[in-house]
Amino acid sequence: MISTRLLVSCLDQPGIVSAIATFLYERGANIVDSAQHSTDPVDGTFFMRMEFVDINDEERVALEESFDQEVARRFSMDWRFSYARDRKRIGILVSRSDHCLLDLLWRWRRDELEGEIVHVVSNHPDLEEEVSIYGLPYTCIPVANDGKAQAEHQLLQLLGGRVDLLVLARYMQILSGTFLDQIAVPIINIHHSFLPAFVGADPYRRALERGVKIIGATAHYVTERLDDGPIIAQGVEPVSHRHDLEELERIGRDIERVTLARAVTLHLEDRVIVHGNKTFVFD
Amino acid sequence: MISTRLLVSCLDQPGIVSAIATFLYERGANIVDSAQHSTDPVDGTFFMRMEFVDINDEERVALEESFDQEVARRFSMDWRFSYARDRKRIGILVSRSDHCLLDLLWRWRRDELEGEIVHVVSNHPDLEEEVSIYGLPYTCIPVANDGKAQAEHQLLQLLGGRVDLLVLARYMQILSGTFLDQIAVPIINIHHSFLPAFVGADPYRRALERGVKIIGATAHYVTERLDDGPIIAQGVEPVSHRHDLEELERIGRDIERVTLARAVTLHLEDRVIVHGNKTFVFD
Amino acid sequence: MISTRLLVSCLDQPGIVSAIATFLYERGANIVDSAQHSTDPVDGTFFMRMEFVDINDEERVALEESFDQEVARRFSMDWRFSYARDRKRIGILVSRSDHCLLDLLWRWRRDELEGEIVHVVSNHPDLEEEVSIYGLPYTCIPVANDGKAQAEHQLLQLLGGRVDLLVLARYMQILSGTFLDQIAVPIINIHHSFLPAFVGADPYRRALERGVKIIGATAHYVTERLDDGPIIAQGVEPVSHRHDLEELERIGRDIERVTLARAVTLHLEDRVIVHGNKTFVFD
Amino acid sequence: MISTRLLVSCLDQPGIVSAIATFLYERGANIVDSAQHSTDPVDGTFFMRMEFVDINDEERVALEESFDQEVARRFSMDWRFSYARDRKRIGILVSRSDHCLLDLLWRWRRDELEGEIVHVVSNHPDLEEEVSIYGLPYTCIPVANDGKAQAEHQLLQLLGGRVDLLVLARYMQILSGTFLDQIAVPIINIHHSFLPAFVGADPYRRALERGVKIIGATAHYVTERLDDGPIIAQGVEPVSHRHDLEELERIGRDIERVTLARAVTLHLEDRVIVHGNKTFVFD
Repeated sequence: MISTRLLVSCLDQPGIVSAIATFLYERGANIVDSAQHSTDPVDGTFFMRMEFVDINDEERVALEESFDQEVARRFSMDWRFSYARDRKRIGILVSRSDHCLLDLLWRWRRDELEGEIVHVVSNHPDLEEEVSIYGLPYTCIPVANDGKAQAEHQLLQLLGGRVDLLVLARYMQILSGTFLDQIAVPIINIHHSFLPAFVGADPYRRALERGVKIIGATAHYVTERLDDGPIIAQGVEPVSHRHDLEELERIGRDIERVTLARAVTLHLEDRVIVHGNKTFVFD
Repeated sequence: MISTRLLVSCLDQPGIVSAIATFLYERGANIVDSAQHSTDPVDGTFFMRMEFVDINDEERVALEESFDQEVARRFSMDWRFSYARDRKRIGILVSRSDHCLLDLLWRWRRDELEGEIVHVVSNHPDLEEEVSIYGLPYTCIPVANDGKAQAEHQLLQLLGGRVDLLVLARYMQILSGTFLDQIAVPIINIHHSFLPAFVGADPYRRALERGVKIIGATAHYVTERLDDGPIIAQGVEPVSHRHDLEELERIGRDIERVTLARAVTLHLEDRVIVHGNKTFVFD
Repeated sequence: MISTRLLVSCLDQPGIVSAIATFLYERGANIVDSAQHSTDPVDGTFFMRMEFVDINDEERVALEESFDQEVARRFSMDWRFSYARDRKRIGILVSRSDHCLLDLLWRWRRDELEGEIVHVVSNHPDLEEEVSIYGLPYTCIPVANDGKAQAEHQLLQLLGGRVDLLVLARYMQILSGTFLDQIAVPIINIHHSFLPAFVGADPYRRALERGVKIIGATAHYVTERLDDGPIIAQGVEPVSHRHDLEELERIGRDIERVTLARAVTLHLEDRVIVHGNKTFVFD
Repeated sequence: MISTRLLVSCLDQPGIVSAIATFLYERGANIVDSAQHSTDPVDGTFFMRMEFVDINDEERVALEESFDQEVARRFSMDWRFSYARDRKRIGILVSRSDHCLLDLLWRWRRDELEGEIVHVVSNHPDLEEEVSIYGLPYTCIPVANDGKAQAEHQLLQLLGGRVDLLVLARYMQILSGTFLDQIAVPIINIHHSFLPAFVGADPYRRALERGVKIIGATAHYVTERLDDGPIIAQGVEPVSHRHDLEELERIGRDIERVTLARAVTLHLEDRVIVHGNKTFVFD
C-alpha cells in the first residue's frame, strides 16, 4: 500500500489537527502514522507530519486544491503533500572518497532508500567503474582553478530538472549561491565534523590537535553559508590518544556514511521540515 | 499552562484522528503535541497520545462521559485521560542499594519528575536517614524467610490507595501475584541486565563469566512472570576484560539509575501505552 | 615500518614484563605499544600484548627459539609472535545476505584490513558477480539437506591450509565440530543478536515479540557450542515500537557489518587473546 | 593490596620498558596493569602508565631517588610515582547547581572515588545544608562584581596546600592565571558543551539555536585560556526538536555529572598524562 505524506507548519492555534484529519477522513484516507509538535502553547509554531493510505492517487491536483482552499488558507499554512509513489530522483556529487557513495549505492540496490539514484557526478574520474557496476551513469566534470562557474554550468545542464535531491557524498567543492538558486532542489551535505565544532577545512586534523575524545559527522542541508545549513543528523564515536590522523579518518568514514545515509533516508521519507535554520525531524 | 493527555488504542480504521481531534477542538482544547502509530494499514492496531491545553479542568467527568459516548464507543477504544494537574503519587520500594533511590529523590527535588514521591519503604533500615533529609516518610518492613505474605500485607496497608505508581528502585524481593492484584497500580522495576539476557539472579556475575562486551539494565512493568513484563526503557555501556565484578557493578549502577529514571519519567508523562506484553513509548 | 606483536598469557608473578622487555631490547626491538593486565595481584592470570619494530625479520626461528628457552619456559607461558609482514589470509563464508561481505570487501580494498581476503565461498550462487568485481575467486558449495558432511569436505579441500582466518559473514549453516577441528584456524561469526539474548534462530523476530528497546549484534569465535563462543565485539542501536520486523533487520544490518568488521580488525591486528571462553581485547 | 603507579613520558627510544620493568622487578614489585604508547616509531614520544604492588611503602624517597638516577636521567624522562595509599585530597568549587556536586559526594561516600573530598566552597550559600549531610565543611566565598581578586585570595587562604585536586563542579566564575599559579594543583572543570563547539557562555541556548542533534559536555583541565585546556573526557546524548531549553539543560545535567565524575575518577587513578594541550588517558 503506497502512502502519502502531508507536511505542515504554521502559527499554532486550536483546530488545526481537527481540520486536517477531518479533511483527509472525508477523502477516504486512513492515517497510519502522524506526529505533531508545537513549540509553545501560546503563539508557538505548529509542525506536523501525517502519513496516510488510500487516497485516490488520480486526484492529486484536486486534492491539493481542495486542501489549499478548505484548510491551508484558513491557518496560513506552509504545506506540501508528498506521494511515496513518486520516488524521488537523487543525484550524487562525489570527489575521490568512495565510502559515502558506495554506502548509498548499496542501500539503494537493497531497496533501503525510498528514491532512485539517477546520476553520479564527480570532479574526478576515479569512481567511474565502481558506479557502472550499479548500472548508473557517471559524469566527470572537473573543476579547474578558475573554472567553478563553468563546472557549475555543466552540472546545471546535466542535472537541472532531472533530480529532486542532490547529495554531496564527500564532494570537496563549494557550490555557489547562484548554483543553489538555479538547481532549486534540496541539497544534503555530509561534513566530517561534529558541527559547529571544526567548521571549514581539515576537521580531523584539528580534532587531533585539540585532543577531543569524541569525533563526529554532520549531515545538513546546504545553504550559501558554508557548513551552516540546517542540521538533519549527527553521529559520533569515541576516540583516544592511540588514534593518529589516519585512524581518525577511518573511524570518521564509518560515522560519515551512516550519518549521511540516515539524513538521506529521513529526507526521502519526508520526515524533515526545515524552519528557519533548523530542522524538525519526525523519525 | 497545565496539559491534559489522552491515550488511546483500538483497532485501526479511518476517521479516528478526525473524531478525536474534532471532539477536543469543540471543547476548546489546543493540541500541543501528538503522536500516533498504526501497526499495519490493514487490520492493524491504532495507538495515540495527544497532549493538549485549555480544556476546562472543572468538567472532567462531563468531558470523559462525552468522549466515551461520542468517540470511544464508536471505535471500541481503550482510552484514558490523564491530567498533569493531578501529579501522580509515587511509592518507592528499595532494599539496601541507594543509587536508584537517590537519583529519583534528586530529580524529584529538582522538579524533574512530574509526580510526588510520597513514601519510601524498605526491607532494611539502612536508608532511613538519607530519605528523611528529603522530608519523606520511610518505613522499614522486613521480610522474614517465611514472612513474605505478612510483609506484603503490611505494604498493602501502608500504600494501598495512597500511590498511583510503585517504583522498585533495586528492591530485592519478588512481589506475589496476589499483591500485584491488590495494590492495583502500575509497578516499575529496574533489572540489572539487558533483558532478556541474564534473566534472574546475579546478572553482573553472569555477564562477567560470559565475557560480554556491553552490559545493560532494563526498566519494565512488573507482572507475575519474573523479569518478563513489558519493557519501558533499556540502557547499555561498553565494558572490557579490565573490569572485574566490582567495576561491572559500578558501571551498572550508573546505567540502572539513568534507565529507571527515564522509565519513571516516561510513565509519569503518560508516554507509555502497554499492549500485550509490549510498550508503545511516545517520547 | 613493519611491526611484530607478541601475545602472552601465563600465571602472574613478578618479573614477567622485565624478562620480556629486556629480551626484546637485547634484540634491538623498540616497543611502540603495549598493554598488560593481570586479573588479580595474587594468583591471577597475566595477559599481555606488545607491539614492536626493528626486530630483524630474517631471524624469526632463532628469535622464537630463544624466547622459548630464555623467557617463556621460565614462566610457563602461552605465547605467540605475530609478524605484521605476514598478512593473514582470510576466507569468507557467506549465504545470501551481502551486507557483511560487501563491508569487508570494501574495507579490504581500502586497505583498512591488515590481511588479504583470498576466497569467498557461499552455499548460494547469488553473490558471485559482486565478488568478481573485487577480483576474488567465488566458489558455490551448496549444502543439501543431508549433505552437510559433503559440503564441509569440499570446504576443507578448498580452504584447508590456504587461510589463516575464516569469517562467517552471515553464513547460515552450522559448522560441525569435526570441520572446526580439521580446518584448525580461528573462525569469527556474526550473530544477529546481543548475545546471550536470543541465542539461536530468528533473533530479530524474537526481539520484536519481546519488545526490547535496543537491538544488537555479536561477533564471536566459533566453537562447537552454538552461539556460545568467546565474544570479541558487540554493537547496539536503539529501536522503538515504530520499527517493524523489516526495519529491525535494516537497523540490524548496520550493526552487524560494523561489529563484524571491528572483530575481524581486532583479530587481524592480534589484539585478541582467548582465555577459556572469554576474550581479552587490547584495543 | 595497595598499588603504586608510575607515569612516564619521554622521547621514544629502545630500552625504556626494559629499564623500567627491570628496575621495578629488582625492588620486588609485581606489575598488575600497564599500558604504553609511542606516538611514532621514529622520533615519537613515549607515554606509559604502570601500576604495581608490593613495593615497600617505607622506602619512597629512596625508591624515587634510585629511579631518577638509574632510569629517568638516562632517558630524560618526565616521571612521577603516585601512591594509592596517599588518597588525594579534593576541594570542590560550586555555584548554585547541585547535580555535579551531589554526584561526586555520592560516589565519594560509596567509595567509588580514590580520594577524599575535604572541602566544598561556593560563591553562594545555597548548598550548605546538602553538603553538611556528608559531614563536610562548606565555605561560602561570595564574589563581588569587583571582588574577584579578593575572593581568590580567600580561596587560596582556605585551600592552598590543603588539596591535591580542585574540581569545578559547575563553578560559574573564571579563575585568574594568578590563582592557577598560586594554588598549583590540577583543576578539573566541566564545560556544558561538546568542546570546541559552543566555547563560552550559554552553550545550551546556542545549541538550541543552532539546531544540533546531539549535545555534550566536556571535562578538561583548567588553563589560563578559557575552555581551552586539555580535554580529559567528553559525553554526548541525542536531542531533538521536541526539546526546549529547559529540557536540553535537564539532559545536559545528566551528561555533565557523568562526564565530570569520569574525568575525576581517571585523574584520581592516575590514568591521565598531560602533554602539551592534550591528554593521554590510560583507561
